[in-house]
Amino acid sequence: MEFAILDKINSPADIKSLDIRQLETLCEEIRAYMIECCATNPGHLGASLGSVELAVALHYVLDTPEDKIVWDVGHQAYAHKIITGRRELFKLNRKKDGLSGFPKMSESPYDSFGAGHASTSVSAALGLATAARLQGKSTKVVAVLGDGAFSGGLAYEGMNNAGACGTDLLVVLNDNQIAIDKNVGAMHNYLLRLSTSATYNRVKNKVWNALGANWLRRHLQKVVKGAKNYFFKHSTIFSGLGFRYFGIIDGNNISELVEKLRRIKDLKGPKLLHISTVKGKGYKPAEENQSVFHAPGKFDIETGERIRTEGAPLKYQNIFGQTIVKLAEKDSRIVGITPAMLSGGQLSDMMKAFPERTFDVGIAEEHAVTFSAGLAADGMLPFCNVYSSFLQRGFDQIIHDVALQELKVIFTIDRAGLVGEDGATHQGAYDLAYLRFIPNIIEMAPIDEIEMQDMLYSATLDEYKGPVTIRYPRGNCQGLALPEEFQRIEPGKAVRLKKGSRVAVLSIGTIGNKVKEAIAEAEKEGINPSHYNMRFLRPLDKEAVLEAASEHDHIITVEDGSVIGGLYSAVCEALSDKASGCTVTGLGIPDKFIEQGTVPQQLQECGIDTESILKAIKYFF
Amino acid sequence: MEFAILDKINSPADIKSLDIRQLETLCEEIRAYMIECCATNPGHLGASLGSVELAVALHYVLDTPEDKIVWDVGHQAYAHKIITGRRELFKLNRKKDGLSGFPKMSESPYDSFGAGHASTSVSAALGLATAARLQGKSTKVVAVLGDGAFSGGLAYEGMNNAGACGTDLLVVLNDNQIAIDKNVGAMHNYLLRLSTSATYNRVKNKVWNALGANWLRRHLQKVVKGAKNYFFKHSTIFSGLGFRYFGIIDGNNISELVEKLRRIKDLKGPKLLHISTVKGKGYKPAEENQSVFHAPGKFDIETGERIRTEGAPLKYQNIFGQTIVKLAEKDSRIVGITPAMLSGGQLSDMMKAFPERTFDVGIAEEHAVTFSAGLAADGMLPFCNVYSSFLQRGFDQIIHDVALQELKVIFTIDRAGLVGEDGATHQGAYDLAYLRFIPNIIEMAPIDEIEMQDMLYSATLDEYKGPVTIRYPRGNCQGLALPEEFQRIEPGKAVRLKKGSRVAVLSIGTIGNKVKEAIAEAEKEGINPSHYNMRFLRPLDKEAVLEAASEHDHIITVEDGSVIGGLYSAVCEALSDKASGCTVTGLGIPDKFIEQGTVPQQLQECGIDTESILKAIKYFF
Repeated sequence: MEFAILDKINSPADIKSLDIRQLETLCEEIRAYMIECCATNPGHLGASLGSVELAVALHYVLDTPEDKIVWDVGHQAYAHKIITGRRELFKLNRKKDGLSGFPKMSESPYDSFGAGHASTSVSAALGLATAARLQGKSTKVVAVLGDGAFSGGLAYEGMNNAGACGTDLLVVLNDNQIAIDKNVGAMHNYLLRLSTSATYNRVKNKVWNALGANWLRRHLQKVVKGAKNYFFKHSTIFSGLGFRYFGIIDGNNISELVEKLRRIKDLKGPKLLHISTVKGKGYKPAEENQSVFHAPGKFDIETGERIRTEGAPLKYQNIFGQTIVKLAEKDSRIVGITPAMLSGGQLSDMMKAFPERTFDVGIAEEHAVTFSAGLAADGMLPFCNVYSSFLQRGFDQIIHDVALQELKVIFTIDRAGLVGEDGATHQGAYDLAYLRFIPNIIEMAPIDEIEMQDMLYSATLDEYKGPVTIRYPRGNCQGLALPEEFQRIEPGKAVRLKKGSRVAVLSIGTIGNKVKEAIAEAEKEGINPSHYNMRFLRPLDKEAVLEAASEHDHIITVEDGSVIGGLYSAVCEALSDKASGCTVTGLGIPDKFIEQGTVPQQLQECGIDTESILKAIKYFF
Repeated sequence: MEFAILDKINSPADIKSLDIRQLETLCEEIRAYMIECCATNPGHLGASLGSVELAVALHYVLDTPEDKIVWDVGHQAYAHKIITGRRELFKLNRKKDGLSGFPKMSESPYDSFGAGHASTSVSAALGLATAARLQGKSTKVVAVLGDGAFSGGLAYEGMNNAGACGTDLLVVLNDNQIAIDKNVGAMHNYLLRLSTSATYNRVKNKVWNALGANWLRRHLQKVVKGAKNYFFKHSTIFSGLGFRYFGIIDGNNISELVEKLRRIKDLKGPKLLHISTVKGKGYKPAEENQSVFHAPGKFDIETGERIRTEGAPLKYQNIFGQTIVKLAEKDSRIVGITPAMLSGGQLSDMMKAFPERTFDVGIAEEHAVTFSAGLAADGMLPFCNVYSSFLQRGFDQIIHDVALQELKVIFTIDRAGLVGEDGATHQGAYDLAYLRFIPNIIEMAPIDEIEMQDMLYSATLDEYKGPVTIRYPRGNCQGLALPEEFQRIEPGKAVRLKKGSRVAVLSIGTIGNKVKEAIAEAEKEGINPSHYNMRFLRPLDKEAVLEAASEHDHIITVEDGSVIGGLYSAVCEALSDKASGCTVTGLGIPDKFIEQGTVPQQLQECGIDTESILKAIKYFF
């Protein structure tokens, strides 16, 4: 496709000379280009479709990159990327050596601050604005925050500080009334009320009705109108938090946006511009099915139909969803909690079956953990379902509110290990390590879907005391037939899958399947190592480790987590007090951040793909 | 002292029969008893003095422990402890085998949920209330939240969820207008405005002035009065968040409190009662000097004078305070950030010298970290000063906003290691471990105050790239004379303090002084081990470790952090790929939570006091 205007936009400077009509055309072209690219190269389309006008208007009005835009999360930022010199590269969005799916400082000077996790923008922008003020620069700083990210405590902390300190800062609240799934929380309801002006109308009617006589109404009309505007502007939560509130304006109307931004950009102090946008704007299938088109995968542009592989195996997410429902049917103590990943984590199955016992708490991982602890403190058995990298947000709460009090919360840690296209911010690299030193916690990871449902079941048994964590990756299962009955798994017990000699491979989690493949290859060459599926990192099966050390010359640990701090460390520690003569080599995610790419590419980069594991085995054999 | 009423109160049941006059006397007696106990056995006096009436009124009106009170932080909860069967034990407040200084579930059935870190109460209480609802119980649940804790994002996440879900829950906002230091943030300002009703008055005057004619005023008086009440109650931030707002009432007036609690306790849905209390209430020195009497140490009851040891050595906190000021004098990029620990962490020195460049962001560790990252992203050099256990709250932000972007934020980690009387919730046990697997981070810990100021200085040098962390304990330095000039410390380089044989002790941080003592003792018995001061955990001085392994039969690592995941793990890993024949034993905080006591008691409990280290050396020698 050719784009008359967009094709000439190589930096924001190129849009400065356009008039409003041309800007409107540009927005249409950006939309068409984004849809074209994302149809074949999947990405986060929905939010970015909604914020095309905002990205264009901000760069039109501001003097970027001297002025700074901080995009929250970054799902809204595709248009921003496309008009800041990355139009062609956008075809490689989320690909290895292509563009990151999120703003990234090292990628472009126009990306003032990186993102990925939600709710960081106001704090980061306040830092940038304060730095500019201290250095006497006239930099303008804008944070763009979605209503979904506003449920995160960090956003509130940022607002609370920005509102008090008087530093010049503009927060654009991009309100599309949806996160990935239906947005939740009181703030969401509040924004909805603001949008519809329902509050104001109720107030007006109350005053009106109290008056009665017609002659008085006439006299009061002006007064009340003035008071109404005054109250509306001065009684928002944002005004309470020290922000000048502007809004609500149509964020998909470029002319309104440009005019408003021009009028307020030079005003002093903290300001909040509340704009209303439509997620999926301008593409009918995306507007009509906003959750699906948040990140639709490949789709047919004409029909909006998603292109799906027939007969795809179950995902680990499905195993979680269907198993928790089965367990909850028999055990009324079981409740499910998710911080805004209802469909992504497949807790949606439980929401369907037991809506009363399922809680989507919004993007609020800290609350998800402490709320779960509260539930557990009075007789419930909560499954707290969080992505590995997002659970980093609940780290203190796991220690302080759960483990210290020995409360039985079962954490099902989704997206553990390498996550592929979402890249560095979303890698589930650290949970094995950051949970291993927390007293009272049980840490386990299944090798396949059968073990996974057995672990989910076993975690509910009384012999599993205190907090239990079960980690599993994003994506497809091994394709095994699932038994109807669950089997009990003995706490802290590894399984020796294969008895060989000289080299013992100790793995935890589904990466064990790559080990199996590597060993099958090795056997063809007459190499015959042992393989232990450790199952538990905490408590570690020390007996199995000692057996492996005494029967072999070399141990290779394999984990799809940071090689520092996890299984490798645990095995090294277990062998440290004896001079066993057995060496230990750790394969896992190395000491660096792993950028976007496919999971196979990332496995290879980390040296935990089948070939690399095979190579390590052969090296030591 | 004898107390006519208090001496007969062994559980809340005993106060139910008292009348209001007797309750007033009881409150006076509790206060006197608290002051008496805390004068000789230091504790967190100020906040608890302010909330005596609240504790008494809640137990008077509610049916505890079936009904549940969740105290935020727990500094307010002394009266609660005293009237729930722990009057005598309160004499052992914060002592080993005595009472925890915080609510603790394992201590009493009246402690519905533990605390220590701030802002958890609403989330935990919502969990308890939801559990009760799901089980069909009529439990009433009350969260008591201070205004200081309201700056924490978790409190907002809790409110945002509680306000939306309609579950019966009462939040008492105990507003004493101060945290430990002066409270900060827009919410603080907002509460102040609410308290003084300034907003309402401004609105009223505006409407009034707009009217003009006197005859109209008369007619409108009633209307405006009604509208004023309506607006006041329906336009608070809390109403916006879905709570029914009640307030403000005098929280030090037991009669008002009891009446109000009785009237609202059975109302459905989420409710917020805003009470105003005086920190230090009823004890003049504490009312007049609220920051000091937050936790005054020992004091003379008559005069209020604090009993201080003459000529006490400098604390590590002082080294931080005076060094950052010196560095900031020469480097205008340097800024200081603290989440509400301005005086505790001694950033107050910088606040005095450079108020423009010093930021107390309130209890908001997540924001403290991301705000620092923003400052670093545009040319500033932030020192982010956080207690070890509180920095757990900023864990994700350290990974996602700082380390991933290789931003140079210098984290000065206070209260690292064992903290004594504050106990399990406040132990700085995990920072060594939770930072060690984060790419790009430098982790160091000085052995004494000279090395500390050298590290603070060296961290500012360009050769220290990306995030730098420097951990140090609470309390007194070694009493060394401090050189005027700072010395550069080579990144990643350990120091061999003593060359011996057979056993090498590798230590990091000030615990190295215990190692020195142990070795001095050992030498008397003709035992001559080596001692390495590792200085850096990241990058680890692998050469030093290999040297130690090749020259000795045994390595003993010593750290005042979790023995899992820190120095011990790093040394085990470093030696894993060679069968060196050298064993490694790790001394450190074991795999359990360490309760309150003195630091020497805790060192002993962990086996890292001088005697235990000596014993370990002798065992291997």
